[in-house]
Amino acid sequence: MKVALLLTGNELMTGDTVDSNSSRIAQSLALQGFDVAHKVTVGDDLGLIVRELQNLTDRYEIVIVNGGLGPTVDDLTAEALSILSGQALAENAEALVHVKSWCEARGVDANAANLKQTMLPADSAVLANPVGSAVGIQLFFNESLLLCTPGVPSELTAMLDGSITEALKRMFPFAKARLVRRLKLFGMGESSLQQLLADHCPDWPKEVTVGFRAGAPLLELKLEIDSIEHLHLRDDCEAQLQSIIGEFIVGENDDSLASVVVDLLQQRQQQITVAESCTGGMIASQITGISGVSSVFEAGFVTYSNTIKQQLLGVDSDLIQQYGSVSEDVVRAMALGALDSASADCVISVSGIAGPNGGTAEKPVGTVWIAWGSRNNLQAKRFNYPVGRQFFQTMISALALDLVRRFLLGSTSLPDYFQRKLR
Amino acid sequence: MKVALLLTGNELMTGDTVDSNSSRIAQSLALQGFDVAHKVTVGDDLGLIVRELQNLTDRYEIVIVNGGLGPTVDDLTAEALSILSGQALAENAEALVHVKSWCEARGVDANAANLKQTMLPADSAVLANPVGSAVGIQLFFNESLLLCTPGVPSELTAMLDGSITEALKRMFPFAKARLVRRLKLFGMGESSLQQLLADHCPDWPKEVTVGFRAGAPLLELKLEIDSIEHLHLRDDCEAQLQSIIGEFIVGENDDSLASVVVDLLQQRQQQITVAESCTGGMIASQITGISGVSSVFEAGFVTYSNTIKQQLLGVDSDLIQQYGSVSEDVVRAMALGALDSASADCVISVSGIAGPNGGTAEKPVGTVWIAWGSRNNLQAKRFNYPVGRQFFQTMISALALDLVRRFLLGSTSLPDYFQRKLR
Repeated sequence: MKVALLLTGNELMTGDTVDSNSSRIAQSLALQGFDVAHKVTVGDDLGLIVRELQNLTDRYEIVIVNGGLGPTVDDLTAEALSILSGQALAENAEALVHVKSWCEARGVDANAANLKQTMLPADSAVLANPVGSAVGIQLFFNESLLLCTPGVPSELTAMLDGSITEALKRMFPFAKARLVRRLKLFGMGESSLQQLLADHCPDWPKEVTVGFRAGAPLLELKLEIDSIEHLHLRDDCEAQLQSIIGEFIVGENDDSLASVVVDLLQQRQQQITVAESCTGGMIASQITGISGVSSVFEAGFVTYSNTIKQQLLGVDSDLIQQYGSVSEDVVRAMALGALDSASADCVISVSGIAGPNGGTAEKPVGTVWIAWGSRNNLQAKRFNYPVGRQFFQTMISALALDLVRRFLLGSTSLPDYFQRKLR
Repeated sequence: MKVALLLTGNELMTGDTVDSNSSRIAQSLALQGFDVAHKVTVGDDLGLIVRELQNLTDRYEIVIVNGGLGPTVDDLTAEALSILSGQALAENAEALVHVKSWCEARGVDANAANLKQTMLPADSAVLANPVGSAVGIQLFFNESLLLCTPGVPSELTAMLDGSITEALKRMFPFAKARLVRRLKLFGMGESSLQQLLADHCPDWPKEVTVGFRAGAPLLELKLEIDSIEHLHLRDDCEAQLQSIIGEFIVGENDDSLASVVVDLLQQRQQQITVAESCTGGMIASQITGISGVSSVFEAGFVTYSNTIKQQLLGVDSDLIQQYGSVSEDVVRAMALGALDSASADCVISVSGIAGPNGGTAEKPVGTVWIAWGSRNNLQAKRFNYPVGRQFFQTMISALALDLVRRFLLGSTSLPDYFQRKLR
């Protein structure tokens, strides 16, 4: 079944905001068997919004509107629906309860702006928003189902999982869900992967669609079937992938490198510590982003200066003087110091030049030493990855986590992509 | 002047790709005085593309098409233009030279797929693409200027800076650039801000457009004028804002809380250190995300467990036993320990319950103690902010940075929004 999207908001027109909502909506709908066939984006312009709602409901049975439900004067969705349908805006009892309890929970009184969000076209129904103050609006018009959602991504996501899915199920109980399996990969690019599949899987069944979503640091590989009958085919394909590129498959769905590392540590009842110079706390932050991490993580050391490397991790000042702080000896000493201090089983240490300044001819910007493993089995490698500062920090944090993941799995190989960045 | 965009590509409909191209286009056009008023996105469907080109050229003088210029069969832009204009596709001499030299530079012969890219509608002109094999296409149709650009972001960017800008300048030499001022705010919601403006600035000049971009943690407030003649009006408005909500204005443009704190520290030649429990390294990571930070930051302590708080920061175990690790005494002791160990001037320490587990009746999930300031002027407050784990970490990191920002500016007030989260 085909669906149209109408996205509203001046910020989407000026380029200030990159629209990621329509991607969220499309992915959620796809799981339920609905395809986005047409997307229109306009600014906060009442005339244009009404006109496009008319156009899209002329051509599509389902129209999802995103944005314009907020409390401010440039939030125009309810007004546009009112003009479109000829129904006056009236206080909606359900919306009023929602807004009042939302304000109460925050210890504030509902002001005029908040109360604006309770005025809906007379015949519309409320779509529950469990996160924000704005309720969603459902309205039938022009023989189409209009579902209006908020622009705030966290609110939209919560509604896609809840009231939107329910509304669509209620109206279209026979829509056929597609069955998607998402695998997360690290250290292999989309084109290399595509080549590998072409070379090694010439007999790929046409029932199993392959899709990619390029991302940094993880690449998503999507295996899709449109009927439960083809599940064995998809399972066969996944088994084939595991045998060819298993080491690159970090996990599935919402798994991240940090969550997988934390899982592996929990299974092994081991603890990890990190000593970070150029990544500046990002690895610790990603590890502690995972709930329940206290069983595997007690301490992280952000040792940005040489003095602190000596003082906090016991790195010998002679080593720093002789080899520099970006060196195998120093990164190994940082790792051992952190292991001692935190009494951990497993460690990551990183020292490098994130840039844009601080590079030399011998150690240019992008040079980084990483040590990882355990006291008795500590690896260290030098990579060169000269990209922007923040991308460097993101990718080197991911690389370090992947190296520990491989270590915990007993693998000694490096992720393909960074194999080529070794120096 | 108003512009319409037509974006094509199946990957934009499935949600596999987030469209960042339209943001690139809008930002480039805005600098030249053109507004994107309407955006339509459709898949690789010849009928839909032709139909939308007709619709958009009926309504807009300038239509920019993005995508569909590649070598494969699902790249349909040239064919759509041919159907639309009734002009047959013919080999374009300029495009042929471009494709041949592009292939030559790569040491390959132009194949059929490459040569497809040289077939353009008879009356169209080539828009130079300095990066990729596909040339852009310029065509007049239906009294509109059609500019067709490639979907590959690097190619699009190069063309926006080059041939697209030139084509627009040639056609519309009198277009007027707009002047935008972006202010970044923390600790005040969009609706409160709007209410404040309504209450305190009843005589706001119509020449100065106000826009908001809600975001977490920062809210962007945009002041826009369309002529340099109105600059004094915009300056007046900004001065008014500074007097009403100056303490909430963190900075401008790409400023972040971390970058502003680093700037303030550099101006004062002071150093900061952080001791993080529930934020787990995120504050350190944000500070070290700023280039040139080594002059103001040497050490960060991620002390997740009680043992490590004692061992690394010298927190008295009696304090932890008596008050618990989420307490004023402990967070103050963490701060003083970090200040000592790092020999810093200024500190942030945080201890709280990020959840979803670990809460008690007395200290529910969302409870957090933050200490900030200097050895002789150390503040500490307890907040309650029960949201999801990652959002909690993000917002508490931002709050902590804002508290230090205010401290460095000599202010003792709290950000309004979190004032209400005090416990």
